[in-house]
Amino acid sequence: RRLLPLFLGLFQGALLLFFALFVTYDEPSVQEENANLVANKVYSTFPFFQDIQVMLVVGLGLLLTFLPRYGLSALTHNFLLLNFSMQWALVLQGLFHHFHHGQVQLDLHKVLISEFAAVTVLISVGAILGRTSPCQLLIMATCEIPVYLASEWVIINCLGVLDVGGTITIHVFSCYFGLGVSKALFRTGQQPLHPKETPTPRSDLMSLVGMLILWVFWPSFVAVLCQPGDAQHRAILNTLLAMSAGAITTVVASSLLERDGKLSPGHLQNGSLAGGVVIGVVADMAIPPVAALALGSLSALACVLGFRFLTPLLGRKFRLLDQCGIHNLHGLPGILGAAASAVAILVASKDTSTSHFSQLSPAGGNASEAVEEQWGDREARGQALSQVAGLAVAMGASLLGGLLTGATLRLPCLAQPPQRLCFDDSLHFKIQDQAEGLEPGSTTEEGALALKERI
Amino acid sequence: RRLLPLFLGLFQGALLLFFALFVTYDEPSVQEENANLVANKVYSTFPFFQDIQVMLVVGLGLLLTFLPRYGLSALTHNFLLLNFSMQWALVLQGLFHHFHHGQVQLDLHKVLISEFAAVTVLISVGAILGRTSPCQLLIMATCEIPVYLASEWVIINCLGVLDVGGTITIHVFSCYFGLGVSKALFRTGQQPLHPKETPTPRSDLMSLVGMLILWVFWPSFVAVLCQPGDAQHRAILNTLLAMSAGAITTVVASSLLERDGKLSPGHLQNGSLAGGVVIGVVADMAIPPVAALALGSLSALACVLGFRFLTPLLGRKFRLLDQCGIHNLHGLPGILGAAASAVAILVASKDTSTSHFSQLSPAGGNASEAVEEQWGDREARGQALSQVAGLAVAMGASLLGGLLTGATLRLPCLAQPPQRLCFDDSLHFKIQDQAEGLEPGSTTEEGALALKERI
Amino acid sequence: RRLLPLFLGLFQGALLLFFALFVTYDEPSVQEENANLVANKVYSTFPFFQDIQVMLVVGLGLLLTFLPRYGLSALTHNFLLLNFSMQWALVLQGLFHHFHHGQVQLDLHKVLISEFAAVTVLISVGAILGRTSPCQLLIMATCEIPVYLASEWVIINCLGVLDVGGTITIHVFSCYFGLGVSKALFRTGQQPLHPKETPTPRSDLMSLVGMLILWVFWPSFVAVLCQPGDAQHRAILNTLLAMSAGAITTVVASSLLERDGKLSPGHLQNGSLAGGVVIGVVADMAIPPVAALALGSLSALACVLGFRFLTPLLGRKFRLLDQCGIHNLHGLPGILGAAASAVAILVASKDTSTSHFSQLSPAGGNASEAVEEQWGDREARGQALSQVAGLAVAMGASLLGGLLTGATLRLPCLAQPPQRLCFDDSLHFKIQDQAEGLEPGSTTEEGALALKERI
Repeated sequence: RRLLPLFLGLFQGALLLFFALFVTYDEPSVQEENANLVANKVYSTFPFFQDIQVMLVVGLGLLLTFLPRYGLSALTHNFLLLNFSMQWALVLQGLFHHFHHGQVQLDLHKVLISEFAAVTVLISVGAILGRTSPCQLLIMATCEIPVYLASEWVIINCLGVLDVGGTITIHVFSCYFGLGVSKALFRTGQQPLHPKETPTPRSDLMSLVGMLILWVFWPSFVAVLCQPGDAQHRAILNTLLAMSAGAITTVVASSLLERDGKLSPGHLQNGSLAGGVVIGVVADMAIPPVAALALGSLSALACVLGFRFLTPLLGRKFRLLDQCGIHNLHGLPGILGAAASAVAILVASKDTSTSHFSQLSPAGGNASEAVEEQWGDREARGQALSQVAGLAVAMGASLLGGLLTGATLRLPCLAQPPQRLCFDDSLHFKIQDQAEGLEPGSTTEEGALALKERI
Repeated sequence: RRLLPLFLGLFQGALLLFFALFVTYDEPSVQEENANLVANKVYSTFPFFQDIQVMLVVGLGLLLTFLPRYGLSALTHNFLLLNFSMQWALVLQGLFHHFHHGQVQLDLHKVLISEFAAVTVLISVGAILGRTSPCQLLIMATCEIPVYLASEWVIINCLGVLDVGGTITIHVFSCYFGLGVSKALFRTGQQPLHPKETPTPRSDLMSLVGMLILWVFWPSFVAVLCQPGDAQHRAILNTLLAMSAGAITTVVASSLLERDGKLSPGHLQNGSLAGGVVIGVVADMAIPPVAALALGSLSALACVLGFRFLTPLLGRKFRLLDQCGIHNLHGLPGILGAAASAVAILVASKDTSTSHFSQLSPAGGNASEAVEEQWGDREARGQALSQVAGLAVAMGASLLGGLLTGATLRLPCLAQPPQRLCFDDSLHFKIQDQAEGLEPGSTTEEGALALKERI
Repeated sequence: RRLLPLFLGLFQGALLLFFALFVTYDEPSVQEENANLVANKVYSTFPFFQDIQVMLVVGLGLLLTFLPRYGLSALTHNFLLLNFSMQWALVLQGLFHHFHHGQVQLDLHKVLISEFAAVTVLISVGAILGRTSPCQLLIMATCEIPVYLASEWVIINCLGVLDVGGTITIHVFSCYFGLGVSKALFRTGQQPLHPKETPTPRSDLMSLVGMLILWVFWPSFVAVLCQPGDAQHRAILNTLLAMSAGAITTVVASSLLERDGKLSPGHLQNGSLAGGVVIGVVADMAIPPVAALALGSLSALACVLGFRFLTPLLGRKFRLLDQCGIHNLHGLPGILGAAASAVAILVASKDTSTSHFSQLSPAGGNASEAVEEQWGDREARGQALSQVAGLAVAMGASLLGGLLTGATLRLPCLAQPPQRLCFDDSLHFKIQDQAEGLEPGSTTEEGALALKERI
């Protein structure tokens, strides 16, 4: 029971030590020209950064509150994991990537990159939500961040994969990592349906609000690392189109699949976001607008079909638990996006319009300059292969890492909650008993009122 | 029952076809100077655009959740209609406005203009919320968008009306369109009060949060299309002042009208926003700050009085159903704003300060350059007449269009829900029965808990 | 009962008169260069301003909804007080600060400064939330704003205190003002625990969402008045670090202090924000990143310990009521921050790096130019003393002002609610009785449903 504060306390100590020894801020710019440059950089990044913070802290947190008695835990664990993972990613990146420069100079861009690393943890948690202790989640984050950083380094820097919105590096990776953890952790097989895991209309409403917040700010997530100017403009538009088409296709698909043409809240909460996952990897490429629409529609369709057919199948055949259906929201659209990016690169290289070619020059990740050079057929085929190889690396590394992490989480000291206490805030929170609140002199009527209210 | 997916599916197909044939992105800028220009344009528009998205998707959606058992439907229908109407407006604008240029070049500004068109649908729905099927709402959107585009074209381009915040073109239009639909659709007369249409404290709280979100971001909505610089700065300030005064006047008026000086949540949810409606048409004109305050107060007063006296009267006399009271929030303040704009123009032309004159040059809509030229008395009188004529066009076109649309919605195939199933999510959503969630082995106590929870 | 509309109505009248007589907008810039300057100023301030509006209207409002039957009142009173205080601050600042320039020229910066003044009222209310009438709150705001403006003027302009994030001028001031009011108003002693003041899981969830919104946007609050460029960049980073460390320390501390290692929702709702309070006063100083982390951790620890030990102690010993625990969130971290700023100044002056010195030049408040000049030991000691003196002035002025204001609030005409009607929306709102909503013909079943729903 004291493991959580012990672990977090030690980590905070190590973090302070690391920052005290190695981290400083940039030297302030002496010249006015540089000061203006810094100011412009802040103004062009900070609004995007704030949008992403809202997505992760409020939007994703609310999306996970669909479990009616687990809202406080879902919001808090999401918040705790975001902060822990971000700090841990800052430390690891500071140690490994920037160590050879001596002092680590912190800036907003480095914090942003660490937030992106933390996103993988927040997504992976979806596979095992509600059946785990906070300690298990923190250990998972501790393992996932280094695997992610290594995998991202291989994919972007070694293979040269173009993935500005993190479709492959973040979504595919975190999905299979989470599934790996789930498989290794719950290997005894399919869990029986728990009475507390069925959403109520009220918890579905909160979760829907979370989805809407994510939906609104998704273009900022995809476009923040793009080249300012045309590429960023196009990334924003592509994301808007994909998400809009995805939203409508979700309604169509859900209505066709459910009895009486009704809609399923779960489909809406996930399918509407699938367009944002799929578009990340091609958002700044020279695809025509219709491709963004089509990809958004296809991914939403895949997501809803996945919920209807694939998740039950995986549960029965592979005894795989996927609590939030992350495979449908992040796995399937991610694979679709990777394939689409390879196709887009091949098609663009055949295109006669030279202005299109130049858009495909490597500008992914945090490249600071767009290389204006045309691609031949051969380079294009190489790049398309890279995209597929990147997908394979992301899936392989994440599955392996996830399985090992999941095995670690079975350590008895990590206090996995027993089945009957799952999905319940009262395991993690001091829920004040209404009865405590009643003073001796209060009437029975007030007590009854208070009781009703608690329901 | 299969009409909804059929209709939406066909529309998505047509949309894909249209985009494939006619829509591209701007050619990327070759010169670095142009790239900077594009980047600056994105940075100056995108934060406003995101604010408006939050308003429409989250704020307006939550505002409509005041019906306690209709929250999922209100949020989802709002979201679906926004996406559908935006895409439909993109198609229509692409076809009609830009067709003579050949290819349609998509940019953020065109998406924004389409969002504005979609707003009219979202407002009009307020008149018939809860008593209609999603199919009916989509047909309504299909009819309303072309009427809006035509009416907006006449008002702005032919009459030269100044209306930067859409007071006349959006708010007045959508209000009377919605009322027309309601009149034609429910012509049998006043509907009896339904037991599920009374808000609960909890649903009122959610709706209040929606109002607050709309209140916060309203200045972005009014100022996004203004001239950058002084006009935009003034539009932001005028909107802030009007909304702040409106909020306080709402409390005063509601407290005076209700028994025991208590406040009505419904008044707060609407009256506080009336200042934003009224100010749109004069926001960038050379009005003194006190005029913004006075207009905000007056419109809030009109809105609350409308709820208290006019809505019941319209119900009794004209058998007009206005579920959300859109006539009080959008109709009355809109008319007030149009009148105020005419007065402001006449007063400004009498003003001796030449610097004020120049502010009234036509800079509404998406004018790209402010014409710096003074107005004489005659021009001012002409412009004031235009404002009034614009109001008349908006009201006439919308009422006519609304009545015809409402008649169409009575088609039996559109599956209007029967009276006793109105205002209920279970008609549109697969609400998971808690009982399904119970495994055979669960104790009675857990079942009881789950049942309570569902309440 | 008619006092509230009377008071607000008179105030609105006075406001209109004041604006009509004295307030105009800036003359529009004639030259294009100036127009660009205005545009850039709007783009660099407005996104921060909107973030702060979201914090105050939505975030802070939701944070206060932890009282389960008082959500409508908490949100509405917060909204009303923000608008009233902002307008009142605009009037007072217009009268006193700007009067000698003749006409008051309104701009976004002046509105922002008035919002900051309004924040003090919103914080102070936390001490007496739920046990007061709206009239009492408005009178409190009427008294607090002038005291704040005077105290802020002395602290910033006379003492030259550096406090860019308002740690001393806003947080410490408002905390002790609120405690003073509470002490004078409820001098009969500790109030018995009211059955309706215990949070439910659902109200805790809403409050947690409010905390998360505040957490996300806090960097905007701290950085908005910083020098553009390096100082603003550093203020954003310092705030991010402090809030992130504070969030994790809160979990550690709460888990150690509560039975069974569970978390207390109240600790989370407050402790996670303590880092933002403490960092305000040093955010733009040349402190190393580790100092921001350490301050965030320390302040969160102080906040949680305060909730656990100090608040009950103050209640028992001093009969002091602090409903929301503002002393723990704003008082203790504020004092810690003031002390830290003095230390930071002394340490920086000993530092050999000249580039660090220059950062400590007086750039607080709305200084328009950074003075690039080094500090000697003597100047540093003087500045450090100033910081301590500023803290003393803030505490002294606020306690005195608060006690006097609290005594005024005991006037019988201000309709303080009786004990048994506290913490209940039905005192201030027309909560529609579900029974009214039932039409005669409705079945019993529907009535029962409606009743259940109301629970």
